[in-house]
Amino acid sequence: MPYVQVNITKGATNEQKAELVEGITDLLVKILNKNPTSTQVIINEFETDSWGIAGRSVKKLRAEGKTAAISKE
Amino acid sequence: MPYVQVNITKGATNEQKAELVEGITDLLVKILNKNPTSTQVIINEFETDSWGIAGRSVKKLRAEGKTAAISKE
Amino acid sequence: MPYVQVNITKGATNEQKAELVEGITDLLVKILNKNPTSTQVIINEFETDSWGIAGRSVKKLRAEGKTAAISKE
Amino acid sequence: MPYVQVNITKGATNEQKAELVEGITDLLVKILNKNPTSTQVIINEFETDSWGIAGRSVKKLRAEGKTAAISKE
Amino acid sequence: MPYVQVNITKGATNEQKAELVEGITDLLVKILNKNPTSTQVIINEFETDSWGIAGRSVKKLRAEGKTAAISKE
Amino acid sequence: MPYVQVNITKGATNEQKAELVEGITDLLVKILNKNPTSTQVIINEFETDSWGIAGRSVKKLRAEGKTAAISKE
Repeated sequence: MPYVQVNITKGATNEQKAELVEGITDLLVKILNKNPTSTQVIINEFETDSWGIAGRSVKKLRAEGKTAAISKE
Repeated sequence: MPYVQVNITKGATNEQKAELVEGITDLLVKILNKNPTSTQVIINEFETDSWGIAGRSVKKLRAEGKTAAISKE
Repeated sequence: MPYVQVNITKGATNEQKAELVEGITDLLVKILNKNPTSTQVIINEFETDSWGIAGRSVKKLRAEGKTAAISKE
Repeated sequence: MPYVQVNITKGATNEQKAELVEGITDLLVKILNKNPTSTQVIINEFETDSWGIAGRSVKKLRAEGKTAAISKE
Repeated sequence: MPYVQVNITKGATNEQKAELVEGITDLLVKILNKNPTSTQVIINEFETDSWGIAGRSVKKLRAEGKTAAISKE
Repeated sequence: MPYVQVNITKGATNEQKAELVEGITDLLVKILNKNPTSTQVIINEFETDSWGIAGRSVKKLRAEGKTAAISKE
């Protein structure tokens, strides 16, 4: 039954998404003994213009080379 | 005041979305006596690569013809 | 596979919640042909102090008898 | 640490998004004394076909010129 | 029509919540010209045990006095 | 910058939550090369009366011993 939503900026490949889905599902099964059949993992991707950290968009932070200090993405 | 978010994989037509919005709003009015004017229903659609069930993406499950057993979509 | 989240203010009975879960699941099966087994409906309840409409909390709006004009709840 | 998600219909410019991110972050710092570095604001945009108010899509409400009475958007 | 969800750890007073609701609604009206009547702001509070940053719970980070460096909360 | 929300029914211990937070953060660092400092994981717990699968509440499914077939929880 668990439902997990992963919000990230765009750029992940389908292979990376598949790894995330598999890895998170495994964690829920191992740690909480959840039934994998009803475990759902959704990956929600956002433009860097639509995600702000510390009051500024990730797009601007990256353009200024400041993102490394705050976040790789 | 209710806010309802419906997460599905892409593929619904605008007519189907309109039916969902109308049907869910009706339920909130009938069951909970909510004011329809302030009832909002949002439909959030995801790629099948971004939705995982049982540790695998819906895209892969469909490609293998396994989705029927777990989920039509 | 659909995942539906219903956000409302506290006050619904378990019977009302059960009706909502059943009704919304039926809609997804009928309108979108979804598999009910993998359809999940979650009801998330909030205090009236934590829900604002038109810039004011539902608690204050109700105390002033103004909620009827904006929202029954 | 706060996480804020703003759901709106499509149409906001990057400048408007930047103003929202900055303004909401400022509010969390001023009102709740939150650390801006860990404050995240995400803007999630939806098609007018995917957003319903009062049981009808915003797209239809706008086409009929009825949206003004219920909502500018 | 905008819907805003603010996720924070528990501890905000009703007065602070009211200020947040008012401030965020004002921003949506001023920046995006949204109709305040249909603007909803929900504040969702979490236990510090249920919120993790950098792989550790906010509860633990605070107990170790490390939260200041990462986040006031 | 990633933000992950894990929705489950109530019952997880603080130790289990801590394991989830750590495990999911590690996955985001390893698979997507995200900065752990800005990675947030929130665990949102729901009553079994508020979570429905296949049109029925998890509470009822468990009482009837039917949950095992659909979901351990």
